Amino acid sequence: MSGYFSMLLYSLDLLGTGVFAVTGAMVAARRNMDLFGALVLAFVTAVGGGTIRDAILGSTPVFWVHDTNYLTVICLATALTLAGKAWWHKTRHVVMLLDALGLGVFVVIGVEKVLSMQLDPMVAILMGVLTGAGGGVIRDVLAGRVPMVLRSEIYATAAIAGGILYIVMYDVGVSRSIVAIACASSVFVLRLLAIYCNFSLPKVTAQSS
Amino acid sequence: MSGYFSMLLYSLDLLGTGVFAVTGAMVAARRNMDLFGALVLAFVTAVGGGTIRDAILGSTPVFWVHDTNYLTVICLATALTLAGKAWWHKTRHVVMLLDALGLGVFVVIGVEKVLSMQLDPMVAILMGVLTGAGGGVIRDVLAGRVPMVLRSEIYATAAIAGGILYIVMYDVGVSRSIVAIACASSVFVLRLLAIYCNFSLPKVTAQSS
Amino acid sequence: MSGYFSMLLYSLDLLGTGVFAVTGAMVAARRNMDLFGALVLAFVTAVGGGTIRDAILGSTPVFWVHDTNYLTVICLATALTLAGKAWWHKTRHVVMLLDALGLGVFVVIGVEKVLSMQLDPMVAILMGVLTGAGGGVIRDVLAGRVPMVLRSEIYATAAIAGGILYIVMYDVGVSRSIVAIACASSVFVLRLLAIYCNFSLPKVTAQSS
Repeated sequence: MSGYFSMLLYSLDLLGTGVFAVTGAMVAARRNMDLFGALVLAFVTAVGGGTIRDAILGSTPVFWVHDTNYLTVICLATALTLAGKAWWHKTRHVVMLLDALGLGVFVVIGVEKVLSMQLDPMVAILMGVLTGAGGGVIRDVLAGRVPMVLRSEIYATAAIAGGILYIVMYDVGVSRSIVAIACASSVFVLRLLAIYCNFSLPKVTAQSS
Repeated sequence: MSGYFSMLLYSLDLLGTGVFAVTGAMVAARRNMDLFGALVLAFVTAVGGGTIRDAILGSTPVFWVHDTNYLTVICLATALTLAGKAWWHKTRHVVMLLDALGLGVFVVIGVEKVLSMQLDPMVAILMGVLTGAGGGVIRDVLAGRVPMVLRSEIYATAAIAGGILYIVMYDVGVSRSIVAIACASSVFVLRLLAIYCNFSLPKVTAQSS
Repeated sequence: MSGYFSMLLYSLDLLGTGVFAVTGAMVAARRNMDLFGALVLAFVTAVGGGTIRDAILGSTPVFWVHDTNYLTVICLATALTLAGKAWWHKTRHVVMLLDALGLGVFVVIGVEKVLSMQLDPMVAILMGVLTGAGGGVIRDVLAGRVPMVLRSEIYATAAIAGGILYIVMYDVGVSRSIVAIACASSVFVLRLLAIYCNFSLPKVTAQSS
């Protein structure tokens, strides 16, 4: 991967971190948490998935310990979110767009980390999904609600599809920057389709079919 | 430990993984989660306890990263559970039996891992319990309910008793395969007694006695 | 730091562990959990924050694996708590005082661990807060309630203030034992002021201001 591409991916990673932090701070505000609660929810949403990934892989200290840009972005995003409450309803679609983009980038980063350690592709897909969707799960648990991602949204499914696409293209030998762009884009597009066209996975219910 | 016995233990480990995954998928279905939610709950129930154990011990990458049989078993068990909903009520007792067996095997595996690292027996018992009961706790938290194991069932207690039995027999020098069988069997029997004879620990309540 | 001071800090660490365990066991009792539930909540409250800290930093096996004094203190504290229910209302203020002291000591220990690894001061403050407040968050999640610390109490804020004070004094070259005492004391005092003078952070709410 070229240095230029790595820099692009890193910039998008920080952008995704900021947007995920915004969604965490918003949930905290809706639950009447205090400033500290907003910081915590912003933090776990933004880096929670990647932190668990690194702990599972033994890649410690985890990624944000050595690069404090992540923490800085999270603090800034939380401050902006709380200061800009009056504009929330106007930025709703922008947040959703950037959140979908962040999901795509996080999946790429998770998959690439596992592949760089020469581990199994199945583990790579799982870690891509964990990096993208894990933070939101912790956020929802701390906010006292059943994680949205387990219930009704095609959030994780977009991440899984992107992960599989990455592995398949990588196996047939496509260059890494192309694979990364294809993976992130497909997650992004699937996620937007899900939001604006109301796709959803069939519910699994306890009643016999 | 003989190679034959190791293979038996490994087979039972995969069996336990599958049954724990089944109970996770069932909880997801009862909560109207989608397919992804079922996979996540199956996954955390089956390997959540062992994953936290390995992260605490620093035995990383954790056990299922290098052996994808665990992930394969979990996916198969989830698919079978969701496909076979019509037969759930007929398999209820089989699931409970296998779940009790899985608990016993998981406790043995957790205790042995700590002992193989020359750590304290008290830590070994704790890790045996964590391996056996930790996954169910995460499952219940994600499903939005207070973990069953903290409330009323003799689940963890069976695990603790088995762990203590292991340490005592190990200390007096009984051969490891005998100790493992005695430990797993005692957990299994205690668990079944608890289910079918309605044993339970005294509640601790806030009212002064 | 002198050997005498290290011993004092270690004693206070064990004291804090015991008091945190007491608060965990009390929450379990109020929720009608069984003895095992009380032990689990005591355990996660007392060592949960430090365990996650060590897993994130890769300092594994985590701290209590090699020093079983922590586990012993937790078991004793749980037993005393459950046996002494009749005296709970008389010890309420003592528990709050000791809990505030434990918080201060835990923050010092978390900050010092990160600094001893030559990591960023921002990470040190975060780990101080995690060590002090993380256990209570897990306790509340397991007990099925939104973590108190995210809602209304100046608990984390006292920890953050203490962490910042530590970093500032450390940077200007004050000796470590003085810095540690100043940090723990300021957390302790802020926490007591918050309890007895009803300080609290402004709520962040979803309504536009």
